Amino acid sequence: MTNTQVTLVQIDNYGPWTVTPEPRREVDLQTLQSRLYADLSQLVGDRGGYVFFTRFDNMIAVTNGLDMDDHAVIQESVGNRYPVSISLSVATGQSPAAALSDATERLQAAGSAQDKSRREILEGRAIESDYRTDEDVQIAHFDVIDATGEYTDQLNAFDSFIEIEQGYAALMKYMRQENDALSFFVGGDNIIATCPDLSADEYEAAIDHVTAVADVDLRVGVGIGRNAHNAGMDAKHALEHARADDTKVEFLR
Amino acid sequence: MTNTQVTLVQIDNYGPWTVTPEPRREVDLQTLQSRLYADLSQLVGDRGGYVFFTRFDNMIAVTNGLDMDDHAVIQESVGNRYPVSISLSVATGQSPAAALSDATERLQAAGSAQDKSRREILEGRAIESDYRTDEDVQIAHFDVIDATGEYTDQLNAFDSFIEIEQGYAALMKYMRQENDALSFFVGGDNIIATCPDLSADEYEAAIDHVTAVADVDLRVGVGIGRNAHNAGMDAKHALEHARADDTKVEFLR
Amino acid sequence: MTNTQVTLVQIDNYGPWTVTPEPRREVDLQTLQSRLYADLSQLVGDRGGYVFFTRFDNMIAVTNGLDMDDHAVIQESVGNRYPVSISLSVATGQSPAAALSDATERLQAAGSAQDKSRREILEGRAIESDYRTDEDVQIAHFDVIDATGEYTDQLNAFDSFIEIEQGYAALMKYMRQENDALSFFVGGDNIIATCPDLSADEYEAAIDHVTAVADVDLRVGVGIGRNAHNAGMDAKHALEHARADDTKVEFLR
Amino acid sequence: MTNTQVTLVQIDNYGPWTVTPEPRREVDLQTLQSRLYADLSQLVGDRGGYVFFTRFDNMIAVTNGLDMDDHAVIQESVGNRYPVSISLSVATGQSPAAALSDATERLQAAGSAQDKSRREILEGRAIESDYRTDEDVQIAHFDVIDATGEYTDQLNAFDSFIEIEQGYAALMKYMRQENDALSFFVGGDNIIATCPDLSADEYEAAIDHVTAVADVDLRVGVGIGRNAHNAGMDAKHALEHARADDTKVEFLR
Repeated sequence: MTNTQVTLVQIDNYGPWTVTPEPRREVDLQTLQSRLYADLSQLVGDRGGYVFFTRFDNMIAVTNGLDMDDHAVIQESVGNRYPVSISLSVATGQSPAAALSDATERLQAAGSAQDKSRREILEGRAIESDYRTDEDVQIAHFDVIDATGEYTDQLNAFDSFIEIEQGYAALMKYMRQENDALSFFVGGDNIIATCPDLSADEYEAAIDHVTAVADVDLRVGVGIGRNAHNAGMDAKHALEHARADDTKVEFLR
Repeated sequence: MTNTQVTLVQIDNYGPWTVTPEPRREVDLQTLQSRLYADLSQLVGDRGGYVFFTRFDNMIAVTNGLDMDDHAVIQESVGNRYPVSISLSVATGQSPAAALSDATERLQAAGSAQDKSRREILEGRAIESDYRTDEDVQIAHFDVIDATGEYTDQLNAFDSFIEIEQGYAALMKYMRQENDALSFFVGGDNIIATCPDLSADEYEAAIDHVTAVADVDLRVGVGIGRNAHNAGMDAKHALEHARADDTKVEFLR
Repeated sequence: MTNTQVTLVQIDNYGPWTVTPEPRREVDLQTLQSRLYADLSQLVGDRGGYVFFTRFDNMIAVTNGLDMDDHAVIQESVGNRYPVSISLSVATGQSPAAALSDATERLQAAGSAQDKSRREILEGRAIESDYRTDEDVQIAHFDVIDATGEYTDQLNAFDSFIEIEQGYAALMKYMRQENDALSFFVGGDNIIATCPDLSADEYEAAIDHVTAVADVDLRVGVGIGRNAHNAGMDAKHALEHARADDTKVEFLR
Repeated sequence: MTNTQVTLVQIDNYGPWTVTPEPRREVDLQTLQSRLYADLSQLVGDRGGYVFFTRFDNMIAVTNGLDMDDHAVIQESVGNRYPVSISLSVATGQSPAAALSDATERLQAAGSAQDKSRREILEGRAIESDYRTDEDVQIAHFDVIDATGEYTDQLNAFDSFIEIEQGYAALMKYMRQENDALSFFVGGDNIIATCPDLSADEYEAAIDHVTAVADVDLRVGVGIGRNAHNAGMDAKHALEHARADDTKVEFLR
């Protein structure tokens, strides 16, 4: 049974900041956002978690293994090094979507994302270490079958991207609605999802749906672990097996 | 008449590298990709251009004002600081999509994205300075009307993201197919497109299409300039006007 | 009784790399070195340690609390993100200088710093957790009395720097020779030293020596703790007390 | 005849910021400082200049080729991405030391380095392009003869560093007092100096002085150019020649 701990990361009052006193240079905003994401990847990743860039101003993390003190240090470290601050809200659930809903509600209750006086909120509860298990996190790592041969080396670079993007848009919606899973594009032709306890059939149905709706053929490796890193590495290895054996769904336990 | 100079940036042999000798830690890949993007934003941005992260392993840049020597310095600087190298292919056209097709074909002709021996290709041609004009680049900056009130402060963070993502997937496809424009999600609720010479009506049609298909309401500011930075700053100011006056399409010239 | 765990970080074969196939751009080398140091600061700092940039190609860290697995992850993470790799050698001793000598010898035994085939050495032993105590690390944080009033706002920026540099050169040599302590310039007018169990008198003698030799007046705050971060934060607070009370040596326990 | 343009970069009110409301984590300060330096290296380096980290809170740059608009963009970009802002003061002179004195005085006149209300000063004058020549900048690149064999592979890592540091302290002081040149340690066993029009004899005298005072044997390559990058690359090549031919002073013109 999965028990995913999800953290919502929100840059405080970011929209207004980007245009005050007048619009800031786009290249600086892009640099700021992507470096903040890189730093959070390291800060959370050092402790076994995964962060996804999502919208950059709102990022979603799988944080099993990080307690509230870890969150506090990460929040402080960002505050010490960036012109913006972040709020963090932590919640847990069998389904990642339910956990994220809880985390979001807590943060919304503390004030609007564009409330000037709402700064560095740190809300929620991490899983007590005694309650953690080796099956808390299920990570699915999808990629596009022969993306390089079918797209990258054939179409122009934007048309390749359109295909991958349409595939992602279809998958993220389906996985959310049917499975309460959260799926994130992570670059190249890769999508990583944090999932509840799903079966091979459920993954196959998702892949079939994307083929039907967006005409993009996916493959998936699935890993289960104590934290996102453990589950994610197993998912990567499972995906390598799927690639080698030309199968669509592989689990590694 | 626009004359967009587009550069395709491709990490050489990246896919194989990420799994050799075995899959690398995801947090390190995320850090590497987002920092490389941040550095390219600065390197290209210092010279008046824009880079979009696109798939991270394939990035697309608007590079009016950068000559081939500038491209060579950027390529060398990345090679000096990263464990991976990049290939660059430059082309120009009235339509950004046509320019990108040219650039892509040149790079594909030099070898596959996963060809081990294809490294640090530098192909194509930049616009001679005598031929540059103050109308070479048209940038459109879209955002979602009241995204914070409608989504961020209401829905859970992933459901907000689904809305924005579906809106983006619809817009990117429409703008490519109808207008030969290239549209990129840049974080938050923002999409930036590099466009040929489009009219207010054409932008309005795009916005209407997204409302119809994805039920997401967009607004757009448009700027025209000698390079991406000039056009993009005007687009930002135009978008501020659209926000203040509650209009859907604003041009700043 | 202190028991300092010291890690020597050495970039593998760095000198030759910087001039192969011909000298690389200095600004890229500077960027590479300072970012690698920043990343190590975070990677080691997340686990309670301190890294000092020293010569940049050879860095020295106080790593109480990091086991060999932590070191392996740090080494792997650098290898995943930089064009160069690092070797790490870990040793422990009542005196930091003795610990560093052990660590250095192990690494030298594995091959020269400019040996092409010596890569990613991971040598030595970390303190078993059962043997760790709350007095393992003694950190001394020095600064220059009224550096801003005496130097920064008076002399030209280089002449100020000469004063601080001469003060540092005198202190680092004295502390090493008399006390087996390792002292590092950390920016501004700040010097941080990792020390064996020293008394207030010994610190006062060091300060007097620097005044006599280099005509620079220092002040010091000293902290003792389980790891560098704990000891270092106490040292900072002690220094604030010394500043407030206009004393020269303050301990916080 | 050299005509060095020097820029003093000063973080505004940095000392007080590092301890307000209480001392900030040292690893975050180290990360902030070294990344700011890395970014300035790129921003200035993209335009042909060199920045030296010096004290990190006060950095010194050779900026021939950068006009005041370039400086303004750099200042704005830092302000957009860091929790601290920088002031910049630009001056020119046949001697780098005289230029830096001018730049420093201008900044001091605008307020103290620890004045809360003195923020983002941009002062001084850049050389008009018509007055620039190919001999404006003289860069000397020193290193220690057989540092790896004599020190790195023999002594412990701190004792090697003491040798190099004592050599640097001696050289920086001599070059400033005798030659009005500014010398900076740049990592490894390397020192880069920005110099007025010096002869081979003057460099030899400096090297002899360091051998006499600090018992460290240096070698130097000297380059002359229109900006720091051009002169610096020639200096590196000259140093390679000195190494190959086992000479002490080499010029490349």
